[in-house]
This record gives sequence, structure tokens and C-alpha cells, in this order.
Amino acid sequence: MRALKKNNRRPEIPRKTVYRLSTYLRCLARLREKKIQTVSSEALAKVAGVKPTQLRKDLAYFGTFGTRGLGYDVAELSRSIADELGTSRLQPVILVGVGNLGMALLQYRGFEQEGFEILAAFDAEPNRRRDKEITHPIYGMERLPAFVQENGVKMAILTVPAEAAQEVANDLVECGIVGILNFSPIVLHVPEEVMVNNVNLAIELENLSYFIQE
Amino acid sequence: MRALKKNNRRPEIPRKTVYRLSTYLRCLARLREKKIQTVSSEALAKVAGVKPTQLRKDLAYFGTFGTRGLGYDVAELSRSIADELGTSRLQPVILVGVGNLGMALLQYRGFEQEGFEILAAFDAEPNRRRDKEITHPIYGMERLPAFVQENGVKMAILTVPAEAAQEVANDLVECGIVGILNFSPIVLHVPEEVMVNNVNLAIELENLSYFIQE
Repeated sequence: MRALKKNNRRPEIPRKTVYRLSTYLRCLARLREKKIQTVSSEALAKVAGVKPTQLRKDLAYFGTFGTRGLGYDVAELSRSIADELGTSRLQPVILVGVGNLGMALLQYRGFEQEGFEILAAFDAEPNRRRDKEITHPIYGMERLPAFVQENGVKMAILTVPAEAAQEVANDLVECGIVGILNFSPIVLHVPEEVMVNNVNLAIELENLSYFIQE
Repeated sequence: MRALKKNNRRPEIPRKTVYRLSTYLRCLARLREKKIQTVSSEALAKVAGVKPTQLRKDLAYFGTFGTRGLGYDVAELSRSIADELGTSRLQPVILVGVGNLGMALLQYRGFEQEGFEILAAFDAEPNRRRDKEITHPIYGMERLPAFVQENGVKMAILTVPAEAAQEVANDLVECGIVGILNFSPIVLHVPEEVMVNNVNLAIELENLSYFIQE
């Protein structure tokens, strides 16, 4: 079992900035598809839905880009952002909890397009009958520690029911997972050096529901 | 086609507070499952992962609850929050874009459990061969305006490819949709009175990826 280093995250760039870097990367990808080679900070800011000053501030966090009057080189800026985000090579990911949502995510191919490869799925009942075909292997939870270590996995997608989520999160942390994308509708308590991003689709709908009431 | 009223959202509660109300509602549901009838603000704040002062401030936005020394009545507080969020009755929702992610979301049953009913799906190619079985009807885009009006639908889940997203969002707004849960990886431009919540699973993974780099 791998010991977790303290301070293995780099706190210098705020989380919101990192989200915006992801958005810029996607906007740049669309420019590349259109064979556009340079882009001004004003134009890139507009498609990304931010102010030009915000964009320049965000990019300043990791160096200087762009030539005054000419703008950014689209390919170069893409590469720099991808390097910074750690997605320039395929990242191995595991998924834990092969219920309804877990199945849906395993069938979704959007992750691989963005540089994440789900190597395997884990479930308390790996052999339970599932009515859809899954190409990923599904293993029992007892194989988790060895698999994570052998494959150098650092990130997990957590799609177990709420009542099991904290316990499974503890197991993941113990195995050496340091990033959890949590779909379970509970607040996970993890050590400081572990990052949790929460995605709750129902909460997003509920939030909309509030704002659209007349 | 329905005219949109300006100011049909209630701006007095901040969006972050509304997200926290959703979290409290889920925590209260778990307490109810455990047959717990009253809860102190300290205990509820702890399971929700917020400070007790934050919890009390959030609840104060829509009235006073709780008895000093006794805490909150779990059932009463749940009902009040659900009323406030507009989820005490089933909300009709449509899904637009039946590709890979759209299919996955149609197969996911988590929405109904939380008070949202996907009435139908729409796609530019409703009859395209799909390799999974879907119980929802899939209609062509030309049926959208009439369907939205006849069924009083206000919320849509948008899962079309990036290049089609803005155009489809325009169509949705024109039909009278005022809340969009956007899974397309672009920034949508919509009128002020329309709410958009963005969910981008790859961006969430990318964000984690940045923070777990050593």
C-alpha cells in the first residue's frame, strides 16, 4: 500500500481557475477543428464566456503566452494547458459501484475522448446479473488494493449507493486513490490530501427547479 | 408559443444556498429512513459538511424553524425545503439529444427518485438505430414546440454534440423552456431569464487530474 505524500497537490492555482482552464482547452479544440491557428484573448474569452481580463489572469498563472497584437498560438496554448492539467497522456481511472448510474457511465465514451481511460469497474457483487453488456471487467472489492497499486491508478469514479459511499471512499483512500469523482448523494469525509469533486445530477435539476418557479 | 415573463426567478436566495438546501434535503431523507424525528442544527450541519452558522443562515432565508434546545422537526423541515425547491410534486422534464450520454441518462433512474420525470426525448434523427432499449418515446425536433406547450414542460436536459448545442438551446428557449441542464461542453448564450446549469463530467475529471499531480 502506497504511503500518501502530504502536499501532493499544488495549491497555487485556485480550483475555479482550473475549471476555466478546462473550458479554454475545449474552446481551443474547437478552434483547431476549424483550422484556426491563432486567437486573440478577446475572441477566446468570448467563446469561453469570461472577461478578457479574467482569461489573461488565468493564463498568467503558468507562464506567459501570446504576442501582443497577434494573439495566442492555438496549438501551443492547448499543449501547455493539457500539460498543466495532466491530461496530455491517457489517465487510468477505475469506477466503483456498478449499479444503474455506474452502468450508464461505463457505457458513456466521453471520458476516453478527453484523456481518461476506465481500466476496470469494481462492485460488492461483481457477478450480479446485469441486463446490459459491459466491455470493462467487473471485479470484487477484494481485488481493489492490488489493482490500484499494479496499475498506478490515482483517480476513481464513485457510484455506490449513499449508505455505502463513505466506507468505500475510506477503502479507496487506503489503497492510494487521491482523487474521487463522487456521484453518491452524500458529503464524503476524506483526508486533506485527497480531492473530492461532487457531481449530483438530481441536485443540478433541483437547483434549476428552484430558479424557474414563477 | 408562451411568452416568457421577466423576473420569473426569485433572486433573493443565492444559487449556492439553493445547492446547500438540496444537500440538507438529502441529509434529512437519510435521517427519516433511520426514523429520526428531530435533529439539532449542529448535527444536521455536520452530516451536510457545513458550519452550523451557515446552516442557520441558509434556513433563515425562508422562515424560522426549530425550537431552541429541541432542534428541527425532520419531517417538517423536509417538507418546507421541498416546497421551496419546487420538488414536492413530480416535475416534467425533456431530454434533447439521444446520443451516447443521452441514452445513458435515459436509462438512469435517479431522476425520478428525486422528483423529476423525463416525459420524452427528442433527437434530430429520432429513428436512427440505437443498440439499447429505451422506454421513453423519441421524437423528432419538429414536435418540440407543441410537446413543450401541451405538457407544460419548463426544464430540459441538453445532451447534443457541442456544435449543435447553441442552436438547439435557442430552439428550447423559443419553445418556453426556462431551465437547461447542459451536458454539452460549450458555454451557452441564453436570455437573462433562462437558467443554465452546466455539467461536464470530463471537466470534473480533468479538474481532479490537475490537483492529484505530484
